[in-house]
Amino acid sequence: MARWQPETTQRLVVAAVDLFTEQGYDATTVAQIAERAGVTKSTFFRHFADKRELLVAGQETLCRLLTEGIAEAPAGAGPLDAVAAGLERASSALGPANRALGPRLKAAVAASTELQERDALKSVGLAAAMTAALVARGVPELVAQLAAELGVLAFKRGYAQWSEIDRDETTGLAEHALAALNDLRQATTALT
Amino acid sequence: MARWQPETTQRLVVAAVDLFTEQGYDATTVAQIAERAGVTKSTFFRHFADKRELLVAGQETLCRLLTEGIAEAPAGAGPLDAVAAGLERASSALGPANRALGPRLKAAVAASTELQERDALKSVGLAAAMTAALVARGVPELVAQLAAELGVLAFKRGYAQWSEIDRDETTGLAEHALAALNDLRQATTALT
Repeated sequence: MARWQPETTQRLVVAAVDLFTEQGYDATTVAQIAERAGVTKSTFFRHFADKRELLVAGQETLCRLLTEGIAEAPAGAGPLDAVAAGLERASSALGPANRALGPRLKAAVAASTELQERDALKSVGLAAAMTAALVARGVPELVAQLAAELGVLAFKRGYAQWSEIDRDETTGLAEHALAALNDLRQATTALT
Repeated sequence: MARWQPETTQRLVVAAVDLFTEQGYDATTVAQIAERAGVTKSTFFRHFADKRELLVAGQETLCRLLTEGIAEAPAGAGPLDAVAAGLERASSALGPANRALGPRLKAAVAASTELQERDALKSVGLAAAMTAALVARGVPELVAQLAAELGVLAFKRGYAQWSEIDRDETTGLAEHALAALNDLRQATTALT
C-alpha cells in the first residue's frame, strides 16, 4: 500500500461488502469490486493484497491506537483500566461509515468459512498487540494476556451493540465498548 | 468422512506434517501426502476435505469431549471447575503421537498465514463449544464465555508445555492443562 487514501479505501470496502452481500464472497472478483468503486484493478491492488484483506481494512490502525491508548494510560492504572484507555482511543477511529457496514459485514462473514478464519486471526492479532502493550507497562504476561482477551471481547461486543442493535444513535462506540468491558469485569469476579 | 479409521487418519497427519516441515505448506499437495502415507488420493478425500483440514484433525472429537466433561461435572461445580473437568476429558484423547507432532505442527503453523487463520478459527470453535456446555449448566452467558476463553488458553498453554517444553515425559497433558488453568485463575484475581 503506497499511500493512505482513506476515501478510496472506504469506497472499495463499501463496494466489496455490497457485492459480498448481493452475490456472496466466493462469487465476487477484484475486478467487480474495482468497477463498483469506480477505480481500476491496479488501484485496488495498491490498497489491498486481495479481496479478503478488505475485511481487515484498518486493522493496523486499530492495533496502533489500542497500543497507544494502553501505553499512555496513567502510571497507576490497572491492566483493565489501561485496556479501557486503549478501547477509547481505538473507538475514535471508527465513524458512521464503519457503523453502517456492521450488519452487512456480519452477514458476509457468517456466510464464508474463509472470512471467519480471517476474522478469527484478526482477533488474535488485536489480542497480541494489547498483550505486548500491557507487558511493556510491567503487567505480568499471563495477566496481560487475560486483560487483552477481555479487551477483544469488549471491543467486539461493543461494536456489535453499536452497529447492529442500538439504532437510536445516542451512544458512541467508545461508550458501548467500555460498558461491555465493565460487564466482563463483573463477570470475572463471578469466576473466582 | 465415512467411517472413523484412526490409523489411516494418523498416518495421513504424520505424513502431511512431515511434508509441511520439509518443503512448506504451500508446496505440499494432497497427492504427495497420500503417497507418503501409502494410500490413494481418494482415501485421503474420504478422511479430509483438503490439506488444511488435516491440521484440525480431531477437532470434532475435542469439542465433544470438552462438552461431555463440562456436562458431567458435579452439580455444585463452579464454571472453572466444570471447564477443568472438560480439559481432563479432552486431554485423554491425545496420546504420544499427538505429543510428538507438537513442535512440527507449531513450525508449520508459524510459517503459513493460511494455517494461522485455520488455527485461530479452531480456537473460536472450541470456545463456542465450551460456552454452550456451560450455558446448558445454567452459567450466565458472559461468565460462560469468559470461562471458556480461559479453558482454551489453558488447553493451548498446557499442550505447548507438554509437547514442546517438558520433555521428561513424567507429566501428562491433563496435568499441564489443569496447572495452566490454575495459573489463569490466579491471574484473574489480579485483574479485579
